[in-house]
Amino acid sequence: MSGNENKNKFVYFFGDKGAEGNASMKDLLGGKGANLAEMSSLGVPVPPGFTISTEACALYQKDKKTLDKIWGEVLNNLSRLEKVTGKKFGSESENPAPLLVSVRSGAAISMPGMMDTILNVGLNDSTVQVLASLTQNRRFAYDAYRRLIQMFGDVVMGVEHALFENILEQARETRGVEYDYQLLPEDLELVISKYKELVKKETGKEFPQDVMVQLRMAVEAVFNSWNNERAIAYRKIHNITGLKGTAVNVQSMVFGNMGDDSGTGVCFTRSPSTGENKFYGEFLVNAQGEDVVAGIRTPEPVEKLKEKMPLIYEELVSIARKLESHFRDMQDIEFTIENGKLFILQSRTGKRTAAAALKIAIDMVNEELISKEEAVLRVQPEQLDQLLHKQFDRVALEKARALARGLPASPGAAVGRIVFDAETAVEKAKEGEKVILVRTETSPEDISGMSAASGILTSRGGMTSHAAVVARGMGKCCVAGCQDAAINEDEKTLKFSSDPEGRVFKEGDFLSIDGSTGRVYEGELPTVDPELTGDFKTLMEWADSFRRLNVRTNADTPHDSKRAVEFGAEGIGLCRTEHMFFEGKRIVAVREMILAETPEEREKALNKILPFQRDDFVGIFMAMEDRPVTIRLLDPPLHEFLPSTEHEIKEVASEMNVSEQKLRSKVEALKEFNPMLGHRGCRLGITFPEITRMQSRAIFEAALIASEKLGRQVKPEIMVPLVGNVNEFVNQKKVIDETADAVFREKGKSIPYLVGTMIEVPRAALTADEIAQEAEFFSFGTNDLTQMTMGFSRDDAGKFLPHYIESGILHADPFATLDTNGVGKLVEMGVKLGRKSRPNLKVGICGEHGGDPASIEFCHKAGLDYVSCSPFRVPIARLAAAQAALKEK
Amino acid sequence: MSGNENKNKFVYFFGDKGAEGNASMKDLLGGKGANLAEMSSLGVPVPPGFTISTEACALYQKDKKTLDKIWGEVLNNLSRLEKVTGKKFGSESENPAPLLVSVRSGAAISMPGMMDTILNVGLNDSTVQVLASLTQNRRFAYDAYRRLIQMFGDVVMGVEHALFENILEQARETRGVEYDYQLLPEDLELVISKYKELVKKETGKEFPQDVMVQLRMAVEAVFNSWNNERAIAYRKIHNITGLKGTAVNVQSMVFGNMGDDSGTGVCFTRSPSTGENKFYGEFLVNAQGEDVVAGIRTPEPVEKLKEKMPLIYEELVSIARKLESHFRDMQDIEFTIENGKLFILQSRTGKRTAAAALKIAIDMVNEELISKEEAVLRVQPEQLDQLLHKQFDRVALEKARALARGLPASPGAAVGRIVFDAETAVEKAKEGEKVILVRTETSPEDISGMSAASGILTSRGGMTSHAAVVARGMGKCCVAGCQDAAINEDEKTLKFSSDPEGRVFKEGDFLSIDGSTGRVYEGELPTVDPELTGDFKTLMEWADSFRRLNVRTNADTPHDSKRAVEFGAEGIGLCRTEHMFFEGKRIVAVREMILAETPEEREKALNKILPFQRDDFVGIFMAMEDRPVTIRLLDPPLHEFLPSTEHEIKEVASEMNVSEQKLRSKVEALKEFNPMLGHRGCRLGITFPEITRMQSRAIFEAALIASEKLGRQVKPEIMVPLVGNVNEFVNQKKVIDETADAVFREKGKSIPYLVGTMIEVPRAALTADEIAQEAEFFSFGTNDLTQMTMGFSRDDAGKFLPHYIESGILHADPFATLDTNGVGKLVEMGVKLGRKSRPNLKVGICGEHGGDPASIEFCHKAGLDYVSCSPFRVPIARLAAAQAALKEK
Repeated sequence: MSGNENKNKFVYFFGDKGAEGNASMKDLLGGKGANLAEMSSLGVPVPPGFTISTEACALYQKDKKTLDKIWGEVLNNLSRLEKVTGKKFGSESENPAPLLVSVRSGAAISMPGMMDTILNVGLNDSTVQVLASLTQNRRFAYDAYRRLIQMFGDVVMGVEHALFENILEQARETRGVEYDYQLLPEDLELVISKYKELVKKETGKEFPQDVMVQLRMAVEAVFNSWNNERAIAYRKIHNITGLKGTAVNVQSMVFGNMGDDSGTGVCFTRSPSTGENKFYGEFLVNAQGEDVVAGIRTPEPVEKLKEKMPLIYEELVSIARKLESHFRDMQDIEFTIENGKLFILQSRTGKRTAAAALKIAIDMVNEELISKEEAVLRVQPEQLDQLLHKQFDRVALEKARALARGLPASPGAAVGRIVFDAETAVEKAKEGEKVILVRTETSPEDISGMSAASGILTSRGGMTSHAAVVARGMGKCCVAGCQDAAINEDEKTLKFSSDPEGRVFKEGDFLSIDGSTGRVYEGELPTVDPELTGDFKTLMEWADSFRRLNVRTNADTPHDSKRAVEFGAEGIGLCRTEHMFFEGKRIVAVREMILAETPEEREKALNKILPFQRDDFVGIFMAMEDRPVTIRLLDPPLHEFLPSTEHEIKEVASEMNVSEQKLRSKVEALKEFNPMLGHRGCRLGITFPEITRMQSRAIFEAALIASEKLGRQVKPEIMVPLVGNVNEFVNQKKVIDETADAVFREKGKSIPYLVGTMIEVPRAALTADEIAQEAEFFSFGTNDLTQMTMGFSRDDAGKFLPHYIESGILHADPFATLDTNGVGKLVEMGVKLGRKSRPNLKVGICGEHGGDPASIEFCHKAGLDYVSCSPFRVPIARLAAAQAALKEK
Repeated sequence: MSGNENKNKFVYFFGDKGAEGNASMKDLLGGKGANLAEMSSLGVPVPPGFTISTEACALYQKDKKTLDKIWGEVLNNLSRLEKVTGKKFGSESENPAPLLVSVRSGAAISMPGMMDTILNVGLNDSTVQVLASLTQNRRFAYDAYRRLIQMFGDVVMGVEHALFENILEQARETRGVEYDYQLLPEDLELVISKYKELVKKETGKEFPQDVMVQLRMAVEAVFNSWNNERAIAYRKIHNITGLKGTAVNVQSMVFGNMGDDSGTGVCFTRSPSTGENKFYGEFLVNAQGEDVVAGIRTPEPVEKLKEKMPLIYEELVSIARKLESHFRDMQDIEFTIENGKLFILQSRTGKRTAAAALKIAIDMVNEELISKEEAVLRVQPEQLDQLLHKQFDRVALEKARALARGLPASPGAAVGRIVFDAETAVEKAKEGEKVILVRTETSPEDISGMSAASGILTSRGGMTSHAAVVARGMGKCCVAGCQDAAINEDEKTLKFSSDPEGRVFKEGDFLSIDGSTGRVYEGELPTVDPELTGDFKTLMEWADSFRRLNVRTNADTPHDSKRAVEFGAEGIGLCRTEHMFFEGKRIVAVREMILAETPEEREKALNKILPFQRDDFVGIFMAMEDRPVTIRLLDPPLHEFLPSTEHEIKEVASEMNVSEQKLRSKVEALKEFNPMLGHRGCRLGITFPEITRMQSRAIFEAALIASEKLGRQVKPEIMVPLVGNVNEFVNQKKVIDETADAVFREKGKSIPYLVGTMIEVPRAALTADEIAQEAEFFSFGTNDLTQMTMGFSRDDAGKFLPHYIESGILHADPFATLDTNGVGKLVEMGVKLGRKSRPNLKVGICGEHGGDPASIEFCHKAGLDYVSCSPFRVPIARLAAAQAALKEK
């Protein structure tokens, strides 16, 4: 209750199975302080301490003398702490033992950039000796002391961190050891004296031996860190306002290495890997957390504690139950036993595998611990991906050593023989071989090979390169941009610069690639098939009942369409037609169309493509039945359909029976400086209306055929790409409508259809009111919209984007997660202006972002009708859409 | 006065030296009707007639029967017209002679797409004979009749225009003549009968012989044309709303070919070519306007009319004076004399040359006819261009025949010997030769050659190609994208496919090119130097006193800077630094920088460039004195500085003393799919801060040197290009500020400076509030902003942009005139959001649009502080800015 607030109270005690604060007082006590108070109130034995409130910090910012005014209250609480712990701050004897405390900052919102933690406050040249003798462990005591000096020197006194590390490194070198824990007590004594000299030299002041001065300086440093440059920048960037300041938590230190009645460990209230409702964990006797991290000793399963300290075990289990039912989620608990007394250092929601997340959420609903809404909110959408794809066997994976690591471009595990070109991939696949297609980068001509392969490995290109996008669309495992892979496509060899053995892989050798982690392995690793258990189905049904957004899929083939429907897709949001142009014989006709010199010649070539396109669409309509199918007219620049190298030109020219010269000069003429902004999208359909006419005809004829076969009407929605100006749309809509009229007249029957547009050019979003007067639906093509709004070429951004993300200029890859501040603003404008002209305008999104949970939440808020994503992301999108709706409530 | 309006009055008479309407009644009578009424009221003898009001049209749209209701009023006015003219509508005898009328539409705003004109209404099989006998000219009478049937058949009865033309063509073929006027009366009789058959065949109805039916059908057709598809589309596109409808003007026909006391002519109240205040014109006795157009007879100067018809001449001069002082501008007047009676057919503001426009405007102010504000509004800014550049001698130009025509990329006239490469251009120019640089297209490496040449001719690229942009920047004559020019750079030959003689031009041959018209001539045409007369200066001073916008220039050299100041530039709005990287030896250092493998190597190379850059900046600062100088940091992708062809790579590698392989692989590595959206702008400065550091240092050191030399402080404004995210700007500003601190500390003195950014990425405009928190000024880079907002690559748009403009999808080239609807919306958002964060934010524009009058008007309205344009466009911008301010009032 914030009713607990008291104008004259600035310090809140916790511990001794009670607390003056509670979880609701985050504003006043910070997140950490409120949580410690909550646990104390629950009767959980946290190491006692007290929290100096954020209000004190706020007053301090106005007037530094605030610290004087509240110091009496701090000392009262320190006395209380001494009483509760039976120790004394600065005690130079073993009885009472010296009290050591940690000093930590903690605002209502966790905030990097502020001072974090100083441990072991209360140690000085005298108390350290007492600690050594109490613990019978000089190494431990000196190490604790040198840590205090280092942390205090760095964050309170401003001595550069690296200077301390230099001294430590020197000590390790002198002793000839690799790790800090290998230093002897005498080494650490020397380090301590050098640390003290360093502090003196750098600051002109001694490291304070007076423990009260330590405490006061530490508290002051926390207050000051609230307004340091980094913290201010962080709040600005993340738009954090309205906070009073940071609280300061002063908490007694406890040590698990005080003897055989001491120890430390970690436990989970349920299994984090399977979700089984079973207490689980490990511990070490007479040790501190670090020993676990350093890997010096192997921890024991927590069940052993039952034998060694049965009472403590019982207490721990009961606390774990209490914490789980209090926080209503599986807890990850850190505990320390100091001289036979159990302390809970931390309890937080435990991380878990996807399978565990599902099981725990559903079990907890069955246990009536949480509601269905909460269960749906508990599972991270991204995690579902683990459940949908083949994975490597976990045990085998732990033993395997990766040859190299690329980008996890499309999840799943794939094993197969190496091939270096698409044709061989197709051939070998026909022979029943599993193959991994290895290419420097892929191009649209590789589509059939990619489709035939079990997995794809490229050495160039990012998360949105051709290989990555197409593979995700196919649900095919892909590792992209594996820079360590040296691929020689001519000689058909593959080497990894990261491979110490420098092996040379040839066509036919086995490779295993993990598209979920980006790792590449030699040979054949065993795989495990995905299992869409009852838990999965149950949770998805709950999710569906909560979401408002519809979820469609991006699919270009009947096969993908069927799979997407199985995954719950409610329609197709983007059916690209260009992939269809590459298959088999039709590419020849496509090239004839491009080489045509008159509209008549072009039409003749297009007439050859028409039956293929029609069959494609019939297949897709049949798969989708009466679900809406949004088909995008031809989008890429025509040069993508022509060969590019001299060698290919020769080959294709002879295939097509045209002169190399003619083909070469067409290739030359179609070259563009910036093809992304060139002659593509509706610009093609406007300059060559024959193309739009052929595609529309194929769609309408297919729709009539499929409707007849199905006995119900299919729902074609024709989408004009790259519109930036309403006049472009009007031009294309006219061609489409005229074609519809003609087909319906010829066939003597008709079918309803919609004509809409992609919104992917910034100008389209800016003039959405004009466009919506003519267009019946919008679909935000956020891939291109991001490229143009940010001025980033997706194919070239690799030269600076990684640096941008590392250095914090960007917080995320804008091609993976929608840039809501910039691109999102255009989406919002587009929706608002569009609906102003046409209130019932159907609006969706079909870029890569349609499968990204954060972006889906944005789409929900922006009022979109649907998102569309690759088949394998449909469940993720369904869950993310449900969470967005639930969060809004 | 609109008080004249009368609820029950729908028809307004004019003529007989008076009228029921006047100029203020445009809404009711349409523009044409109001103007005819106004002239009549002035006592100007216009052929009498009447106007059916727009209100009648509005009522007709609701209820077709309106025509019945107002028909009585129409007939009353027709009677009055017969009385005034002494003729009778449909009369089959010579006395009274048959009255013929024209029927014309005319809305308040002139609007293509509506029915325009039907002449000679009142002719039929009988009246045509009377006309023939009255004029003693059967050819004329039959021709008038066949014109009526053709116009009436087409626009009233809907027969396809081409079908009439076919019949006419057949008649010419049969007779074996080239022109219509060569047809004999009997030919025309045959044409008439075929026309009538055609109408019958196509419409199933006869061409109406009843003249009353003709009149009524014509009026109805005008009314109907108000809501035809084209007219609706036109109003929609141009956002024309609130009009009632179109008026219909029924006016008696007069003929100048009724004998020797008849005639026709055109006169100007002042000279349209020099502006001299002298009555000027020409006429033909016994002729109609067409005879002049057909060029059968040569007209006589209007002074001759004084001898032939002194009274008429006197009347004409007095009417001309009256019209000029009434309309307060030079008038272009069409007149006809019918049987000794003068009729004024039309009086409109006369077109004039730039020199005439200036002289007339200033004379009229001196004559106290117009105010200075009006004078400034009278001169078209674009026209000034004529005055600023060398031009071809007008007489010589009229005789010359162009070899070919390209785009008028940069105005002026240039004569010189052909050279095919930049090096030869530089050499020959050094020898004192004038040269024309002829290239397929230019690249940054051609800069020095372009600078040395008198003019530039390219066969590829549009109005914003490299050649065009650079030439305009230099004020150098350029004809770009001359597609008929076949240039063989290897063999050094030039041919024009448009040249019927197929001549082959070689290096050293003379060529004359006109950058104002895009025409290319053989040999040496004489040129005339620009003369910035007193009139020019006076008008510019007046303009300066009215404008609010400042005008800066885009200039990269001291030479251009000086010239711009002479033209009135108030600062530099864009100093590009990349051009400086190409000159002389420094390109070698630039390439060393690019090939550097460590920051240290890069810094070493940059240190070689530093003194050059500093000298460049000193020169520019000296030229600009205390005017602000905005310098943009390096912008283009680095590959622009590297050679591209194998041949160049060989050459440069040997020059630089590096292996070809190293150079080639760097060229390869820097290749980008979409360089426009690639690693350029601040992205370079962020990944290579050394570059920003070097450039900032050069600027600050130069600023201190120049300030000392000048004895007053120069004003550097450093501009960070291609910012899309405030974090990018913060990153670069930090480097700049640190460099400033360092330089100021070293030199012991400092100077104020600003750091701002280009707004050229759509995201920058969308997040201008964030960016303005850090940036001290904005400059809209509307070239790139247009590319990204519309998704048009300027270099590639040639493949569809011309088609877009021809077919009306776009109304103008968005790279020449700002797309206010789309790109302009971002500019407005940018200004608004920017000033929200920083109310005193300085905002300018530095794209090509900064010199375009329509775009300047937009910039004025959007509240920008300045526009910046190439030196030669500075006067244009000054005038346009003044006009924008005056129009706002």
